[in-house]
Amino acid sequence: MCVFCKIVNKELPSKIEYEDEKYMAFYDINPKAPIHLLIIPKKHVENLNDMDESDISMISDMALLAKNLAKKLGIDKSGYRIVINNGPDSGQEVYHIHMHLLGGNFLGSKLFAKI
Amino acid sequence: MCVFCKIVNKELPSKIEYEDEKYMAFYDINPKAPIHLLIIPKKHVENLNDMDESDISMISDMALLAKNLAKKLGIDKSGYRIVINNGPDSGQEVYHIHMHLLGGNFLGSKLFAKI
Repeated sequence: MCVFCKIVNKELPSKIEYEDEKYMAFYDINPKAPIHLLIIPKKHVENLNDMDESDISMISDMALLAKNLAKKLGIDKSGYRIVINNGPDSGQEVYHIHMHLLGGNFLGSKLFAKI
Repeated sequence: MCVFCKIVNKELPSKIEYEDEKYMAFYDINPKAPIHLLIIPKKHVENLNDMDESDISMISDMALLAKNLAKKLGIDKSGYRIVINNGPDSGQEVYHIHMHLLGGNFLGSKLFAKI
């Protein structure tokens, strides 16, 4: 079972910011910004390459969640970045699709080594 | 009118990779990777802060387009990153929502100064 599925199943601990039936948002254990959340679907999907018209709406759901969490955490006006890595060249480390939500200061180059 | 609306209206030139009724994908004029496309909705929306349940599905449409363009351009297996910047701290420069699609080599830190 992948590490994010273990987090979903509470077999591994995480600092959870949000959870519902289909999605979870928890803090990256190696944050690249003052606020660095990972938003995932509970359903295991590797990355965008695995998705099609039937399940791509998960990306919109995650984006709306990112927007709402940015507001809740007070970074909606100052600004935030969302990122999805897909495959080796992107530096994707866990092959369970996840959207990075980053904010809390200016997102300069040093923050973006291999997110 | 914003610069991306001018590109949509063909009042400004761009190297277009894809276009349909609702979306357009064109090459970033200051590429941060061998392949660096900007995917936009033709409808003017500033960023995620402007979107809600009624139009958030545009993000899924853009993500599916990114996936399909990655395949067309031969970077689906090697890997690619999608990014949406929202607001000042993210370095968003044009306030017409756009999804960066980056790939073509390993996406290290130097590639991510203020995309």
